[in-house]
Amino acid sequence: MVNVTVVGASGYMGGELLRLISRHPEVDDVVPVSRSYAGKPVSSLHRNLYRIFDIPFVDLDLEKIDSEVVFFAAPPGDWFEKVPGLLDNGVKVITLGGKFRIQDADLDLKVYPGYENQRLLDERVYGLPELYRNKIRKAMFVTNPGCYATAVILGFLPMMKFKDKIDLKKLISTAVSGTSGAGAKPSEFLHHPEMCSTVKPYKVLFHRHLPEMEFILKSAFKKDLRVHFTPSVADMARGIISFITLFSENIDVSLSDHFQDFYKKEPFVRIVCGDNENVPQLRDVVDTNFCDIGVNVDPDSGRVLILSVLDNLIKGGSGQAIQNMNIMFNFKELYGLDLIGSRP
Amino acid sequence: MVNVTVVGASGYMGGELLRLISRHPEVDDVVPVSRSYAGKPVSSLHRNLYRIFDIPFVDLDLEKIDSEVVFFAAPPGDWFEKVPGLLDNGVKVITLGGKFRIQDADLDLKVYPGYENQRLLDERVYGLPELYRNKIRKAMFVTNPGCYATAVILGFLPMMKFKDKIDLKKLISTAVSGTSGAGAKPSEFLHHPEMCSTVKPYKVLFHRHLPEMEFILKSAFKKDLRVHFTPSVADMARGIISFITLFSENIDVSLSDHFQDFYKKEPFVRIVCGDNENVPQLRDVVDTNFCDIGVNVDPDSGRVLILSVLDNLIKGGSGQAIQNMNIMFNFKELYGLDLIGSRP
Amino acid sequence: MVNVTVVGASGYMGGELLRLISRHPEVDDVVPVSRSYAGKPVSSLHRNLYRIFDIPFVDLDLEKIDSEVVFFAAPPGDWFEKVPGLLDNGVKVITLGGKFRIQDADLDLKVYPGYENQRLLDERVYGLPELYRNKIRKAMFVTNPGCYATAVILGFLPMMKFKDKIDLKKLISTAVSGTSGAGAKPSEFLHHPEMCSTVKPYKVLFHRHLPEMEFILKSAFKKDLRVHFTPSVADMARGIISFITLFSENIDVSLSDHFQDFYKKEPFVRIVCGDNENVPQLRDVVDTNFCDIGVNVDPDSGRVLILSVLDNLIKGGSGQAIQNMNIMFNFKELYGLDLIGSRP
Amino acid sequence: MVNVTVVGASGYMGGELLRLISRHPEVDDVVPVSRSYAGKPVSSLHRNLYRIFDIPFVDLDLEKIDSEVVFFAAPPGDWFEKVPGLLDNGVKVITLGGKFRIQDADLDLKVYPGYENQRLLDERVYGLPELYRNKIRKAMFVTNPGCYATAVILGFLPMMKFKDKIDLKKLISTAVSGTSGAGAKPSEFLHHPEMCSTVKPYKVLFHRHLPEMEFILKSAFKKDLRVHFTPSVADMARGIISFITLFSENIDVSLSDHFQDFYKKEPFVRIVCGDNENVPQLRDVVDTNFCDIGVNVDPDSGRVLILSVLDNLIKGGSGQAIQNMNIMFNFKELYGLDLIGSRP
Repeated sequence: MVNVTVVGASGYMGGELLRLISRHPEVDDVVPVSRSYAGKPVSSLHRNLYRIFDIPFVDLDLEKIDSEVVFFAAPPGDWFEKVPGLLDNGVKVITLGGKFRIQDADLDLKVYPGYENQRLLDERVYGLPELYRNKIRKAMFVTNPGCYATAVILGFLPMMKFKDKIDLKKLISTAVSGTSGAGAKPSEFLHHPEMCSTVKPYKVLFHRHLPEMEFILKSAFKKDLRVHFTPSVADMARGIISFITLFSENIDVSLSDHFQDFYKKEPFVRIVCGDNENVPQLRDVVDTNFCDIGVNVDPDSGRVLILSVLDNLIKGGSGQAIQNMNIMFNFKELYGLDLIGSRP
Repeated sequence: MVNVTVVGASGYMGGELLRLISRHPEVDDVVPVSRSYAGKPVSSLHRNLYRIFDIPFVDLDLEKIDSEVVFFAAPPGDWFEKVPGLLDNGVKVITLGGKFRIQDADLDLKVYPGYENQRLLDERVYGLPELYRNKIRKAMFVTNPGCYATAVILGFLPMMKFKDKIDLKKLISTAVSGTSGAGAKPSEFLHHPEMCSTVKPYKVLFHRHLPEMEFILKSAFKKDLRVHFTPSVADMARGIISFITLFSENIDVSLSDHFQDFYKKEPFVRIVCGDNENVPQLRDVVDTNFCDIGVNVDPDSGRVLILSVLDNLIKGGSGQAIQNMNIMFNFKELYGLDLIGSRP
Repeated sequence: MVNVTVVGASGYMGGELLRLISRHPEVDDVVPVSRSYAGKPVSSLHRNLYRIFDIPFVDLDLEKIDSEVVFFAAPPGDWFEKVPGLLDNGVKVITLGGKFRIQDADLDLKVYPGYENQRLLDERVYGLPELYRNKIRKAMFVTNPGCYATAVILGFLPMMKFKDKIDLKKLISTAVSGTSGAGAKPSEFLHHPEMCSTVKPYKVLFHRHLPEMEFILKSAFKKDLRVHFTPSVADMARGIISFITLFSENIDVSLSDHFQDFYKKEPFVRIVCGDNENVPQLRDVVDTNFCDIGVNVDPDSGRVLILSVLDNLIKGGSGQAIQNMNIMFNFKELYGLDLIGSRP
Repeated sequence: MVNVTVVGASGYMGGELLRLISRHPEVDDVVPVSRSYAGKPVSSLHRNLYRIFDIPFVDLDLEKIDSEVVFFAAPPGDWFEKVPGLLDNGVKVITLGGKFRIQDADLDLKVYPGYENQRLLDERVYGLPELYRNKIRKAMFVTNPGCYATAVILGFLPMMKFKDKIDLKKLISTAVSGTSGAGAKPSEFLHHPEMCSTVKPYKVLFHRHLPEMEFILKSAFKKDLRVHFTPSVADMARGIISFITLFSENIDVSLSDHFQDFYKKEPFVRIVCGDNENVPQLRDVVDTNFCDIGVNVDPDSGRVLILSVLDNLIKGGSGQAIQNMNIMFNFKELYGLDLIGSRP
């Protein structure tokens, strides 16, 4: 059993952490930290947690944290400076923000300006279990992947085997996300009357998850490569679908079989096969920690089309963070994540 | 031909006025007034008007207006003081806000605090053509009805004839609106992730349109009465559906026929009859100036169920305002309002 | 531990039963029965259950059922004749359809024509735990309540105490449901292009759940009464919100306190109190077995407005059925229903 | 003035034709043909046309058509055989289906099996005014483009000028459509509970509009090329957004300026420029005949990202058909298409 602190517990990611943790069999106490909401019951903000999580938010001096693990779901801030002290005290740390995901000081600083910290950058493990489970197991400091990055990387990863046959400069991904990805703060862009019955692209040439995807894929592929990524939001609260296109010379195995094989031990990646085409359904993974993937090949043109879907706040955020905690503490990986999508 | 000034042209109501006016055959020049957006092209904000309305917003001294008619789609403000001067100069004025709709100084002040002006209250005509067309024809100053008020009043009005058979203390209306009714300003309540796939009641016992409904219905019925009104928003940008229940002694005529007859000369009210039940469809009136109504009777229980639907920004706002302008200037009532709903 | 058979496992209700049961700690084997899909993996239809419930549907001779409990989520049919035999064999039966809910042979036959069976009608217990937990505990044959009926009855029930002060002939409910309530079969009414961005009333004077509500409320109130009910569907897959209006003489206690007290031992009813008004949120109960209720009083007009929300497929269907099973077998009532709504 | 016959008037495309034509200043009589609905008022099916188009559908012997122009919005059928006779009688014909769009007998037959007719194939003009206005002006028989094809082709067309710098084998388009594109017939795929809050890809490697796009683009570019197209439907009734990616060597002019220039005389194509990126908004073109396009360049990677949006039933269907009629009869191109999108 562990005690858990959640810093930034008032946002969507923080709320999902509290919700999932509240059913985790190896978690004892949870401390929900929020400066702005300190003193107010968690359930007054996260009303879904009414009668489940009614204790108040607290405003905590981070140096006084005495839980075994801290999740930081807070925006970038001075709290980065406190992390080394926590690590020195044996507290494991999982961050859900983008800072330090890219283990390249210059690029990290360019994408996430401010807050340099070489030690954190050196020690961080990228929290994608399907790629770094062994490192995560021993890690003290894990940076949880971005939502789009998780969807796109998990889609591309099995193609590593064929990297010499692929045009690595032309990896293309269009992705469509639910609006919760942008967080709880109201904006004109996400004002309901302007956001319903539409699909709205944004940051069409450069989204912050793009260098993250490229950095991780380069590390995995051990090759230079280029991702061309365009995100959009659609009229739904949750979920991401990523359309991934790449061009390859002839591959003489069934890619579906290869994907199945590649992920066969993964508890949260499911390869989907249909009768005529392999199309995972977004609604099957919403409110779960699954990433469902389908791969389709047009042998005639050399196009490979990979489709991956996940819940941006769970496998793309809080669920994956808990998966990482489970690995770091050697808990069953399913604990707290025993979620099944609903139909319809 | 007239020239038109729109004050508060940057909001949703203002934008719809510009859109509808731009196709009005009797309107010459339009001056779009907005202090905040002065100098910027109208179409930089109302992008739907790109290449249709690209002139800039202006910041205008209201005393210098020289158009024949002014629409005020602005929030309450000091501009009320300028209205008498405009009227004295022969400028006709149509306001889209709630102030002065209730021709009872105390109640008006209670519901819309601040800004007393007895002359405006005295001279105002309530801009519901189906009830006050003759007065509107001669009016200089028209207060355009509220969106919910239009839907509910048009539903109840034909029951005037049977007022002695109705329990007038128990007029009940539940209404569901699209989210555009709340205006263009972002809010937590209407933040997309929290507003999709749901129905959210608000101001469940007292909405500002309630005293307006009661005031107008009392004037029309020449009886005391009580409306019990509860509004909600649903996951759609536009449209209002109002469920109206009242209890009546036996009425020995077909209410559908009576409603047809009551509104038979109205260009924008359609009475809907189905095979088994009389249910108007919201989507048929979205983006039109129609109010569609169906009336259903349970002779056994004495319940009368009236359903009325309209577009909150058109018949419930800018369209009705233009209908009023058409009446005030003796234009064809259809001008600028020649809109047909789409299917699907 | 028990074994469970689900007849009609291919529909939405059946699918939800399989999903919830798959996480139930006291359920051993599950037999999913579907004649049409026999032989096909459950997850080929209910794709959300992929890698969770991959065994095939079976076509079973009902006489050969040897599980401890059977859920019938099937449409009305000849299977009614087999139920007495199952009961005689000690198999407990829970039906999710409407037949036999109304314990009045004539009315039952009028509302659900065909399939008379006096024994089933006599033995049936209405599966609303908040009203009949003790009877359910001892029951062999439980008819699970309708989704609208659950929402409306749970809203009205606490008013029993004040029945002498209420106008019992004017109990009014407007309700808005997600579209899953109509089942998995495609129809013009629910064809997506015609169902998005709208609210569509249907069966506006007579829905089959209306006599059910009246029958149960009369039994509970021990008074004659009349419910006026109008359902609609809105642009969402799941959830029901019921707006309940009644008129009462002055009640000199806080109704919110009374509701809290009335349901204080109930694990799945939550009374919601806000700062200014008491409005439960539909999204807080979707994908849970909760029914959230808020009560609002206008002392001036005597209006009581009760709002109740629930998930039509869970507390309004499969979840409540499992709650009934838990009671019938003396399992913890939370088993299999340990669901928390998500935000957003 | 002309008389118009609409064959297949009961579908979505047919309904939109009737709606748009009803406001067309050069159209006199309209004959709505539908075998299935013959005798029933048009507005009993297309309820949006209530009190606008209440005459009945007719079942007409096509040989007896005596209007100047016929729109065929019907599914493929024996009526193809009647078209030559109509043409011989001087009746102009516009078809909205896919047959004969691809002016290559083998490919046409492969994509749209059955119904060979070399004369029709020879005489057909592809009804994309931006490409073939002069031919359309003289045409007797026009095949109106597909909705996706219009969006994708209009996006690519201006790149003709740079065809020697483009990797023409890797033209990629992902597109997301509203659900009305699939027509009025209910299906499981578009059953509302399964279609809301999601994005569903389909025909991910081969959609029938793909060979159409390639055929037309090859003709225009006078080069071989390859389009990789993947369509999806999202939770909205109308509109298509197409994400177009291509790779190019350095182009030393502003592509936005070039696109502006390329389409500068087009009444229904608008090039959108933003402050940081060029993103057209789907909602600005819904219920209009506009196609809005934005072009974005990443000089570093050579990626060109073109975004195009249109209303699938108007510029992608009935509106473009009327635009073609206007050109064929030398009417003002705006007639009947004077539609402005609404905000919000």
